[in-house]
Amino acid sequence: MPASSKSAPPPIVTLLTDFGTADYFVAAVKGVILGRCPGATLIDVTHDVPAHDVAAAAFTLLAVHRSFPPGTVHLAVVDPGVGSARRPIAAAAGGQLFVAPDNGLLDYVLQRESGARVHHVTAEQLFQRPTSATFQGRDVFAPVAAALAVGTAPSHLGPAIHDFVKLPPLRPATDADGVWHGSVLHVDRFGNCVTTFARDEAPGTNLKGRSFRLTVGSRAVTELREFYAAGGESPEALFAIWGSAGFLEVSAWRDSAARLTGVKRGDAVALRMG
Amino acid sequence: MPASSKSAPPPIVTLLTDFGTADYFVAAVKGVILGRCPGATLIDVTHDVPAHDVAAAAFTLLAVHRSFPPGTVHLAVVDPGVGSARRPIAAAAGGQLFVAPDNGLLDYVLQRESGARVHHVTAEQLFQRPTSATFQGRDVFAPVAAALAVGTAPSHLGPAIHDFVKLPPLRPATDADGVWHGSVLHVDRFGNCVTTFARDEAPGTNLKGRSFRLTVGSRAVTELREFYAAGGESPEALFAIWGSAGFLEVSAWRDSAARLTGVKRGDAVALRMG
Amino acid sequence: MPASSKSAPPPIVTLLTDFGTADYFVAAVKGVILGRCPGATLIDVTHDVPAHDVAAAAFTLLAVHRSFPPGTVHLAVVDPGVGSARRPIAAAAGGQLFVAPDNGLLDYVLQRESGARVHHVTAEQLFQRPTSATFQGRDVFAPVAAALAVGTAPSHLGPAIHDFVKLPPLRPATDADGVWHGSVLHVDRFGNCVTTFARDEAPGTNLKGRSFRLTVGSRAVTELREFYAAGGESPEALFAIWGSAGFLEVSAWRDSAARLTGVKRGDAVALRMG
Repeated sequence: MPASSKSAPPPIVTLLTDFGTADYFVAAVKGVILGRCPGATLIDVTHDVPAHDVAAAAFTLLAVHRSFPPGTVHLAVVDPGVGSARRPIAAAAGGQLFVAPDNGLLDYVLQRESGARVHHVTAEQLFQRPTSATFQGRDVFAPVAAALAVGTAPSHLGPAIHDFVKLPPLRPATDADGVWHGSVLHVDRFGNCVTTFARDEAPGTNLKGRSFRLTVGSRAVTELREFYAAGGESPEALFAIWGSAGFLEVSAWRDSAARLTGVKRGDAVALRMG
Repeated sequence: MPASSKSAPPPIVTLLTDFGTADYFVAAVKGVILGRCPGATLIDVTHDVPAHDVAAAAFTLLAVHRSFPPGTVHLAVVDPGVGSARRPIAAAAGGQLFVAPDNGLLDYVLQRESGARVHHVTAEQLFQRPTSATFQGRDVFAPVAAALAVGTAPSHLGPAIHDFVKLPPLRPATDADGVWHGSVLHVDRFGNCVTTFARDEAPGTNLKGRSFRLTVGSRAVTELREFYAAGGESPEALFAIWGSAGFLEVSAWRDSAARLTGVKRGDAVALRMG
Repeated sequence: MPASSKSAPPPIVTLLTDFGTADYFVAAVKGVILGRCPGATLIDVTHDVPAHDVAAAAFTLLAVHRSFPPGTVHLAVVDPGVGSARRPIAAAAGGQLFVAPDNGLLDYVLQRESGARVHHVTAEQLFQRPTSATFQGRDVFAPVAAALAVGTAPSHLGPAIHDFVKLPPLRPATDADGVWHGSVLHVDRFGNCVTTFARDEAPGTNLKGRSFRLTVGSRAVTELREFYAAGGESPEALFAIWGSAGFLEVSAWRDSAARLTGVKRGDAVALRMG
């Protein structure tokens, strides 16, 4: 049995940004965290969020956070308004902790985790001095993440707020003809198209054993598979599948559904039950 | 002397996948491991294996594993058959531990490490519940890697097997004219072309001090250098060199041998001794 | 309070290379370090330095190192002369430790940190055996970094030297007309152009509240902003800003200044005070 399991393990801090990996930005954030929370375990979620794409980061954070143990601190910085008046916020939700700019980045998590509490971080004495106007990931958000990691409660960082920035809700809407309208929430590395239809909400809850027609770009999908390799391997065959993030995905056998349908993130999808 | 060296160090788990680094996939795998093996040291080998390219991942695992200390757990997931009936396997070989889908990914390591033992992982009680059909890296392989990291023996995960999937052997063949035929095993970031000619096997063992002619794509190589900067720096000069993975590589001085020769992974190479 | 903060934290080793992330190179370096310094915290700075671009790596190391706690070991390998006679060096500077090939990679740090001491690493008994002629990152630099991380002083690794390789100085020069001439030191992921004009040196020290004209490629910049979102958001508007690395940057609101000006790293910039 390794020694590390005999005492409390080091705190975990995840990092999710649009900083890329070619610059020194991510390492600078980590250096500041390690200086304030020695021994922290630092985990990259991704730094390849499209520059300034808050909703893309919000989806990624939603999809990943429940894989981490209770008490994990998630630091997320996609921040088109860096240096402006937008607030830094810290949140507790679902047994985990979050720090981000107040621009909607945490909203998908907060929509889906019960008992979420959000605080405006006003404890500026924590920040790195001098505080760069262009790199708040290093000088503002890293110190806050480290404070959460060493045990500081969000309520000690500033006042509770309820007017934090929201994103458009993920929930699909149904029209007069009973057609459900959603959108493409994410296209992954393999070209799978994650839709806004969630497994645990209508219309997703109605799909099993029913016939349906899901319109995605130039194509229509009528098959719900249990796993990728479940059926025929005909070229260009599209199918729907419940993806690992809990949403309906459009996939193709060893091919890119995004390429076959021509859709990209944000495009509309429509679901008609048979 | 740092405290960390006074007690048993945390277990090491390496990760090798084709998941890319833009999605949440890799972090989800890490979150599951950290929840089950708190304090584990997690090391990325690469996540940029070409999608579904099992042989490329097998080479990378072969090239890297001996750099790690005994007891390291190597988690490798390149899995075109995710969700199908292909087996998860766990192996002990060369003093290290491995977990992967049974599709040949471990085969180059198993070909070259003595005393390898391979087990079909049937201990489904370890898996994450519910078990996603599309993301077994998170729900199947991560829990198994964590079990190995906390000290579970592969033999406790399921029955020993001998019929695991093999890849075509790496060993070069010789023809009636005495010409050795191999292939390009890997092209690295610098354009060096790693061949299947190993240093410790014929014909590699015969090269020293002999004249030879190595045909690679559109070019022929006749010089064996000890290091990159050893000789002339003439533009477009190609040479052979024993690479860090133990295989003969075709290289160029501050240039890409792959570009100069026009070869890519899998292409044939031929060696004629002088 | 986490257990990890009760005793000395594990040593930190950062890694900065041009190895890319698709090969096994970075993981091999980490495996060797972990075998010699169990439990070390390993932090990637970047591995996407343009191949063989020593000055780019030198800038990145300069920009990031002060974000790390005292005692951090920085391992930097961009090494066009791998295997040749160029020396491995180890340095202590600014309370931190550095190991790199002697090709100028440490020079920007050494120019700016007082009390720097540089040693030629001759302690070959530390190296991995056999020592690959093509992969000294793994077989030479990783062992040296591990030795520094476990507490070996640079002076125990070899003799002090003063003739280490320098890069052209960063300091801008002024001409007979009083125009300052500098260059583009770095272009970051967002297209911000970092110049060689430092905040704490002339002419940077003179900019505040003065009118100026900064010529960058095809464009001229006359505005100094405090933060990105400070002013108008007119398309194609360029402005100067003090960047997080302490140098004057040319930026654009949600756009790439590099694209708008057409400059790349190394291009000249000129500053005329009003």
